[in-house]
Amino acid sequence: MTARRSPSLAQGVVRVETVANLRRAVGVWRADGHRVGLVPTMGALHAGHLALVEEARRRCPRVVVSVFVNPAQFAPAEDFDEYPRDEAGDMAKLAALGVDLVFAPGRDEIYPAGFATTVTVAGAGAGLCAATRPHFFAGVATVVTKLLVQCLPDVAVFGEKDYQQLVVVRRLARDLDIPVEIVGVPTVREADGLAMSSRNAYLTPDERRIAGGLNVLLADVAGRVARGEAASGALAWGRQRLAGMGFDSIDYLELRDAETLEPVERATRPARVLAAVRIGGARLIDNRPVAPVVEAAG
Amino acid sequence: MTARRSPSLAQGVVRVETVANLRRAVGVWRADGHRVGLVPTMGALHAGHLALVEEARRRCPRVVVSVFVNPAQFAPAEDFDEYPRDEAGDMAKLAALGVDLVFAPGRDEIYPAGFATTVTVAGAGAGLCAATRPHFFAGVATVVTKLLVQCLPDVAVFGEKDYQQLVVVRRLARDLDIPVEIVGVPTVREADGLAMSSRNAYLTPDERRIAGGLNVLLADVAGRVARGEAASGALAWGRQRLAGMGFDSIDYLELRDAETLEPVERATRPARVLAAVRIGGARLIDNRPVAPVVEAAG
Repeated sequence: MTARRSPSLAQGVVRVETVANLRRAVGVWRADGHRVGLVPTMGALHAGHLALVEEARRRCPRVVVSVFVNPAQFAPAEDFDEYPRDEAGDMAKLAALGVDLVFAPGRDEIYPAGFATTVTVAGAGAGLCAATRPHFFAGVATVVTKLLVQCLPDVAVFGEKDYQQLVVVRRLARDLDIPVEIVGVPTVREADGLAMSSRNAYLTPDERRIAGGLNVLLADVAGRVARGEAASGALAWGRQRLAGMGFDSIDYLELRDAETLEPVERATRPARVLAAVRIGGARLIDNRPVAPVVEAAG
Repeated sequence: MTARRSPSLAQGVVRVETVANLRRAVGVWRADGHRVGLVPTMGALHAGHLALVEEARRRCPRVVVSVFVNPAQFAPAEDFDEYPRDEAGDMAKLAALGVDLVFAPGRDEIYPAGFATTVTVAGAGAGLCAATRPHFFAGVATVVTKLLVQCLPDVAVFGEKDYQQLVVVRRLARDLDIPVEIVGVPTVREADGLAMSSRNAYLTPDERRIAGGLNVLLADVAGRVARGEAASGALAWGRQRLAGMGFDSIDYLELRDAETLEPVERATRPARVLAAVRIGGARLIDNRPVAPVVEAAG
């Protein structure tokens, strides 16, 4: 082990850059009988990420947070270069939460020369965000598979904010037999209900005000469906409302099965209203749960 | 654990059908400090497979052989239904070699309802066999990823007979960070040099005689390239010879880099001559190594 590659202490959190050092640390914890939780992130941590870390902490005495802005999930025209990065701030926040290890690999550690393997998920990985970001879920599925196999945690925690991603990750972990429990954590919101997101930093004050309406509209649509209205009507109403709110465009507003993401017309099982909209330089996504409608007898 | 799912003893080898029971057995060995070797097979075991098992045995005190005829690597028109199966014979051979565990999952254990994930390998997984069997390596890569993650062995052993598969498996194991050493074992051959294959059972006596010429031709081409002849000339010579030997058709005859499978014109690094031909109801593949040519100085 060279000095350059040794784990380093920054503000009390051990930070490693190599899979070998990650595995060494996890191996020591395993030998001591400790359960391990993993929280994969792209950094630029906000309260939403910290809620994931706290959930991992509640479930496991040892918590790893990975910080890696994954180039494979950005298309060439997307915001990989602009994506916010704040390593010092991230380390301070994670130290304050008592995280045991930060895994911050460089690009070559994750995608060395000759890298050629892709993990794709059909079904849940198609439609919705994949319709406008066709590269996205292959990039997510591949890097999450790698992170899960690198760390082999007992639990990995993801936010419900990226709901389609959560379903895709559950699917790939099950399908590839990765021995991990995937845990979803409810979205953390600003005072007006806007879902916290690193990309909210792209919003001007005017755009920020408009953005706050998205979650209210989703809650309205969810309420209509929960009261028995058909999805087609509720979504048409919602799309018309969204169009008048000041967003530049609507990528989608859909009602889907909460587990499979198949389209549903009536919420007879747990469902989810999901939307993606564009405003200024930002693409915002959000979603709300819909409790199943109890059908009246006869 | 239900009685139906309990490990069963057949001729002295423990046979399990579920990932849970596989992991339980491997977990006990790990706790005892034993290294574990895995030999993935599709059954119908011949001396070629047994050489893989013996190699695993040499490297690991505990050996698992998986037997699963993987539907995902057969196209609808291919020989999934006809593929030879001989479970009793397989178990007897593996018992004689002292294999510790046979993992023989049913189709639903590997591909349960809702299964939606695919592993693909670019580069090595394109061309050669993929040109005529485009579904093949995604099927192989997906099931091998699953078997490796299910068992998490220290070593997994594959035959050089399926050389492109071996390169694809090395690539995916490295790319997905699966903590396993992939070991390739030289092809076991019949008296006339025909590579052993479960599919040789499809050959009539006349076809069997013709098939024996394939490995001789490959050795001749390899010899020409090793003596400094350019690939283009040696392969053209070889294709012409093959066409006159009685095969129904030639899928390919190629010279490739032994590690990356990129086409090479001169064997300045270790290379491989690879071929696939069709005769009667069988598709035969074989390959031969080419030692690097030492270039004469100026």
